[in-house]
Amino acid sequence: MKKVDVIVVGGSAAAVTAAITCRRHYPEKNVLLIRKENKVLIPCGIPYIFGTVGSPEKNLLPDVALEKNGVELLIDEVTDINRSGRTILTAGGSTIGYDKLILATGSNPTTPPIPGVDLKNIFTVKKEITHIQQMLDQVNKAKDLVIVGGGFIGVEFADECLKNRDVNITIVEMLSHCLMLTFDEDICVVAEKIGQEKGIEILCQEKVEAFIGNGAVEKVKLASGKELKADMVILGVGGVANTTLAKKAGLELGPTNGILVNRYQRTRDEHIYACGDCAEKISFFDGKPSNHKLASIATQEARIAGANLFRTRRINGGVIGVVSTAFGETAFALAGLSEREAIQKGYQVAVGEAEAPNRHPGCMPEMFPLKVKLIFEKGTGIILGGEIVGAKCGGEVINAISVCIHQKMTADDIAIFPMGTHPMLTASPIAYQLTNAAEEAIKEIRMN
Amino acid sequence: MKKVDVIVVGGSAAAVTAAITCRRHYPEKNVLLIRKENKVLIPCGIPYIFGTVGSPEKNLLPDVALEKNGVELLIDEVTDINRSGRTILTAGGSTIGYDKLILATGSNPTTPPIPGVDLKNIFTVKKEITHIQQMLDQVNKAKDLVIVGGGFIGVEFADECLKNRDVNITIVEMLSHCLMLTFDEDICVVAEKIGQEKGIEILCQEKVEAFIGNGAVEKVKLASGKELKADMVILGVGGVANTTLAKKAGLELGPTNGILVNRYQRTRDEHIYACGDCAEKISFFDGKPSNHKLASIATQEARIAGANLFRTRRINGGVIGVVSTAFGETAFALAGLSEREAIQKGYQVAVGEAEAPNRHPGCMPEMFPLKVKLIFEKGTGIILGGEIVGAKCGGEVINAISVCIHQKMTADDIAIFPMGTHPMLTASPIAYQLTNAAEEAIKEIRMN
Repeated sequence: MKKVDVIVVGGSAAAVTAAITCRRHYPEKNVLLIRKENKVLIPCGIPYIFGTVGSPEKNLLPDVALEKNGVELLIDEVTDINRSGRTILTAGGSTIGYDKLILATGSNPTTPPIPGVDLKNIFTVKKEITHIQQMLDQVNKAKDLVIVGGGFIGVEFADECLKNRDVNITIVEMLSHCLMLTFDEDICVVAEKIGQEKGIEILCQEKVEAFIGNGAVEKVKLASGKELKADMVILGVGGVANTTLAKKAGLELGPTNGILVNRYQRTRDEHIYACGDCAEKISFFDGKPSNHKLASIATQEARIAGANLFRTRRINGGVIGVVSTAFGETAFALAGLSEREAIQKGYQVAVGEAEAPNRHPGCMPEMFPLKVKLIFEKGTGIILGGEIVGAKCGGEVINAISVCIHQKMTADDIAIFPMGTHPMLTASPIAYQLTNAAEEAIKEIRMN
Repeated sequence: MKKVDVIVVGGSAAAVTAAITCRRHYPEKNVLLIRKENKVLIPCGIPYIFGTVGSPEKNLLPDVALEKNGVELLIDEVTDINRSGRTILTAGGSTIGYDKLILATGSNPTTPPIPGVDLKNIFTVKKEITHIQQMLDQVNKAKDLVIVGGGFIGVEFADECLKNRDVNITIVEMLSHCLMLTFDEDICVVAEKIGQEKGIEILCQEKVEAFIGNGAVEKVKLASGKELKADMVILGVGGVANTTLAKKAGLELGPTNGILVNRYQRTRDEHIYACGDCAEKISFFDGKPSNHKLASIATQEARIAGANLFRTRRINGGVIGVVSTAFGETAFALAGLSEREAIQKGYQVAVGEAEAPNRHPGCMPEMFPLKVKLIFEKGTGIILGGEIVGAKCGGEVINAISVCIHQKMTADDIAIFPMGTHPMLTASPIAYQLTNAAEEAIKEIRMN
């Protein structure tokens, strides 16, 4: 029987990062990564197959990082874990022993229990090449595409499917705005407006009651009574942790149905770790269960799991949650809590906003406005969250904000933090959005 | 006699920010800003007048922020401070009383004592519209431009003056590379290559011995014996604090000849504060005198000075120093200490580097590589500095690094910091440069 030091089960962001991290921290250990898929799709890149990159084959995770870091790769499916014997069994019939096992089995898209959901041409977004190719073929034929769910997946798919196609696209969203689970309303409205100007129809506070059709979907019936013509439906209503293997092995699940782990990413079995979408998470802000499923969090947890396998080196401080996207030229991003979520969690908040061109003077080439909104706890002045709308460099500004949150910086700290500025790269130092948003909030913080 | 609560002397980044900050923090106080110039140039924008924006009038600091924040503006020159009577005297004959005075008088370019430096068509970069217009007129006629000093000013001017002009440009630099006072050698070399490929001649380890000409400059004689044809010379060899007014008022200067201030930006006179290029600075890393003169630091100090006028609210932790620039499409940036400077300061260092496309997959539009180099103290793993070469979003990544330095984060902290990533905005979470550069350094840190 083959035996290795470490087996990683999974093939996407968490699995790859966990395997590499283990090799970086314990170069003397051998690491075997076992995944089902011959080729792995870049998860966040999937929507961009449909309008920008053009084919699943152009959106693959390269295996070169595994090779470079000396991670062994096996294409096979792990079907069982024998915890007492510390072996795994594969569909291909192999039994392989391990010292440490990392589960990075990801998540699967939710299929909502709506009548008619099994009709042809209704798709969830499965991370499988043949499935995505089928979706792409259907989008290229579709005249009336209905997208159920106005979250990131829904909005990104709408934006991409519209590119170079003559197709009517309607987003059906239960909440009062698209992206409402992430952003504050003022920012959702900006995103919706960009979509509407492109010709995407957005129906909010609407629920799908049934999919109707004869074999293939023809209509989507809404709770309001409205019926939408549809020759294709994309379901973007969230995902669930893939815990089949863990459950079979008797590992405990947490309150959001992820594999239960401690702050070292270790399960109750000291030889088994879990990270990424399949693992249970808690919030940085209050330690309560967190439902975030993001590739960035997956890699963060993988860097913790991988480093902790043979010595306890890193601790997970909980999910801050940093998400970003772009529609056309406009980036949208959030780190930590939105104003609404902070209030829901019971914080008294002080908010500051600052908008400025991302170049100075404003007539410099490639100028695009960038707005930063920061949310602070009123009593302490500590930052709870930040939101961004505007220039694409905002995708990195949100990461500076994330560091501020991670470090529990106050509005005063941020107002005088030593930023660098340059005419070709950023706002002017006088108008720099991050510092100025903090200054704007201070007025409100000082009043109490 | 007129009396106001606060007088700010100066018109550039520090003065404007100090005045606005005071109004934000003490809205009940009236603030008068007194400056010589009718219109003020954006200091960092000056090089971009020459190739990108086209005229000084397009690179002005707007006064709207002063108006919006209720700062009174007087165009006049402050010639004397009567400290015991707490009044200032202006060239226009006004005497104005103050409770608090902020000196933000900036810096002047250094004129090196080289024979012939007074010849016509030899320019320092003064922040004055008529002077800059004269430079622009001369650049438009020049055939052979020699730039003395390969620092930021020199390199940015070379890049800009070349745009849409048929002019031979030579940079003369004393050190072994351009930008050597800022970046590590490997990064200087990338910048030099971009300049050389554009046709800029770069002469390093060369010193100007004399400027030769009959009335106007005709030749530049180098210490090596080489002579360069020149019908225009730009001197970019640094600046000195403008302390004329402070000295006249008997205020003490510090070791770098800036106005001596404490960590609250207060001078030895409890009613007088100073900030920006005119003020003495100390390093964040060892408390030793710092020679940095940057608009970003100026605004940071101004936010401290303005907030501290009537209550002690903010403390200056010392200069980290964040600088950035771009040549063509490539951004260059540094925060904190370069590897060389860290070693000079006596640190044992561990260095990590990571390069990746700033989009994922790499075939996404607007893809540009971005490289991050991080410098850590070997013993503690605490970050000391970071350098960036590549995509323009690097101008914001360097600010995330600056927060990390400010917060004394370790390589482990940074390796698992919760970044956000997106195909249209950043590298992939697996390859994210900041976390991966930290991971690369950890190998070296752990070994000790």
